[in-house]
Amino acid sequence: MSSTVRIALDVMGGDHGPDVVLPGAEIALTRHPDISFLLFGDEGRIRELLARLPRLAAASRVIPTHVVVRMDDKPSQALRQGRKVSSMWRAIDAVRVGEADCAVSAGNTGALMAMAKVNLKTMAGISRPAIACLWPTAKGESVVLDVGASIGATAQHLVDMAVMGAAMARIVFDIERPTVGLLNIGVEEIKGVEEVKDAAAALREADHAGLAYHGFVEGDDIGKGTVDVVVTEGFSGNIALKTAEGTAKQVADYLRAAINRSLMAKIGYLLARGAFNALREKLDPRKSNGGVFLGLNGVVIKSHGGTDAEGFASAVDIGYDMVRYQLLSRIEAGMNDRPRVGVAGGEAPLQDDMQVSS
Amino acid sequence: MSSTVRIALDVMGGDHGPDVVLPGAEIALTRHPDISFLLFGDEGRIRELLARLPRLAAASRVIPTHVVVRMDDKPSQALRQGRKVSSMWRAIDAVRVGEADCAVSAGNTGALMAMAKVNLKTMAGISRPAIACLWPTAKGESVVLDVGASIGATAQHLVDMAVMGAAMARIVFDIERPTVGLLNIGVEEIKGVEEVKDAAAALREADHAGLAYHGFVEGDDIGKGTVDVVVTEGFSGNIALKTAEGTAKQVADYLRAAINRSLMAKIGYLLARGAFNALREKLDPRKSNGGVFLGLNGVVIKSHGGTDAEGFASAVDIGYDMVRYQLLSRIEAGMNDRPRVGVAGGEAPLQDDMQVSS
Repeated sequence: MSSTVRIALDVMGGDHGPDVVLPGAEIALTRHPDISFLLFGDEGRIRELLARLPRLAAASRVIPTHVVVRMDDKPSQALRQGRKVSSMWRAIDAVRVGEADCAVSAGNTGALMAMAKVNLKTMAGISRPAIACLWPTAKGESVVLDVGASIGATAQHLVDMAVMGAAMARIVFDIERPTVGLLNIGVEEIKGVEEVKDAAAALREADHAGLAYHGFVEGDDIGKGTVDVVVTEGFSGNIALKTAEGTAKQVADYLRAAINRSLMAKIGYLLARGAFNALREKLDPRKSNGGVFLGLNGVVIKSHGGTDAEGFASAVDIGYDMVRYQLLSRIEAGMNDRPRVGVAGGEAPLQDDMQVSS
Repeated sequence: MSSTVRIALDVMGGDHGPDVVLPGAEIALTRHPDISFLLFGDEGRIRELLARLPRLAAASRVIPTHVVVRMDDKPSQALRQGRKVSSMWRAIDAVRVGEADCAVSAGNTGALMAMAKVNLKTMAGISRPAIACLWPTAKGESVVLDVGASIGATAQHLVDMAVMGAAMARIVFDIERPTVGLLNIGVEEIKGVEEVKDAAAALREADHAGLAYHGFVEGDDIGKGTVDVVVTEGFSGNIALKTAEGTAKQVADYLRAAINRSLMAKIGYLLARGAFNALREKLDPRKSNGGVFLGLNGVVIKSHGGTDAEGFASAVDIGYDMVRYQLLSRIEAGMNDRPRVGVAGGEAPLQDDMQVSS
């Protein structure tokens, strides 16, 4: 890492491309003047916008690209058409060749993950990457992973995610031993969660220096902030994330409709406006925008595709922190003595790359 | 079914037992005077409470039992100690022998499901039961299943749940062809959701008379009310349900805290109180209390263990509707021409009882 944090941006990614990415980068730059940017995308459009963003212009280098990965491209399609030539691939590639410390894209998740895996490869000892997000909770925020990189997980995958998520939580929350919970359902003795139970046994037994294993948590524990890190496989993690987003929106909509139904309520709303603004601020999805790809040989951040400049700036902020506070070497350190499933517990060790057959 | 709807109550179930169950039954009775109750539990306690509930007393028969399934009993433990003798088992057994049309319990879910499966058995053609709940949405309510009966699901399981959930939705929403969506995650081409894809193909191909297949839905579609019935396997269904409950509570807590922070906001709150009450009413978990066990030879309703009398009454109401509008024969009719996975699509048919190996 150089003295500046060098961030490669897929300028063409997301629903709004350069119109959001560049103003977003400008905002992040005001917060972190030690960022330098590599801007991959349509040179004409970029130069046009940079003319109005002199601070960003001074901190950036533009690398023209001519292929854009679309939001609805399938990963295989994106790889076929965009490999080596798209703004998304090139931003990731800058990380691989050491010209950037981190890549940020608001492009489509599947394509970004596919390109990141193919180009950066997974870290030694880690069989596959995960996507971690910051989840607003009653106590602040928690790290939740995997929110959609892979479906299904062996016990060892879950354990590895616990180690990686804890490494990220150490940076974000600045605590030495973040608490970790495994997401489970509160029905005893039903079959099919052997992986979760085996992972729990390994984590409890190992008493890893990098994390404090809490035990099982249920869906409602995520929002309570019961633990710093919630670990689950990608299908239920993604369902949980989307369901929570939907519910928060639903409650806000109910409230708005209820207030609009009477004049008295509207007056009350005006008086309580400060409280409502605080609520809006608290629930602002832009503030926790930025999925962190964990387990790759490089830092890649996924921003929401539909976000605005403020939201994109948050994703850049997260990338900045992950680089500045050395996510990769923290994960490496954590993996050196990662808990092994089936070793402590006396069972046959699972292969790292063992796939869930369902 | 007799002219009255005969409901068997596990009076000892739930966190509060008779103190909630009996007043709850009384409330349901005022709404449905054509219910007759069988009350299974501690005779002394029941008679004591009935002395103050004369209407319920007149519509009930008490059957003394001496064993209580505890809220933290494991299913196997509950079966060992409570089979044939517990209030829970006896209430279910009343359905089996035809003395009741439906059983309602606020006891622990795992034990109730285990006893219901062992005693009532699954319906012909259905390999395993599911738990369906009513989920409040922006448009009203939706049926969501499975919220925790089984983990993992084959494509045929998902299809069968679609048929059963649609049968329930026809009753609850009074519409002929409820729309059905399969819960999925919006990441293309990642492995592991073959079951969901195969189920989708079978449902689309079959064009079943009892349901209108909508397609995939994501987590945030549940709260939007995109479809009448959301189908998923029990692990993610349970995670989604608990996560939504947690998020709704979290938002309400934020709002309360924000309002209490300033005098002006408190005054505003007083003026807008009507709106807040409407919101509270809308989010009241008691109103959608009652998990319906689908796929058994009998109707069994699970109430939340910690609910109050009003909430328990909702669970009784749901049981009443399921009996009055003939859930079982509707499911049977739907299963007669259920879509078969792999038949329409030209693949080898799956066995009904095929287990997901993960």
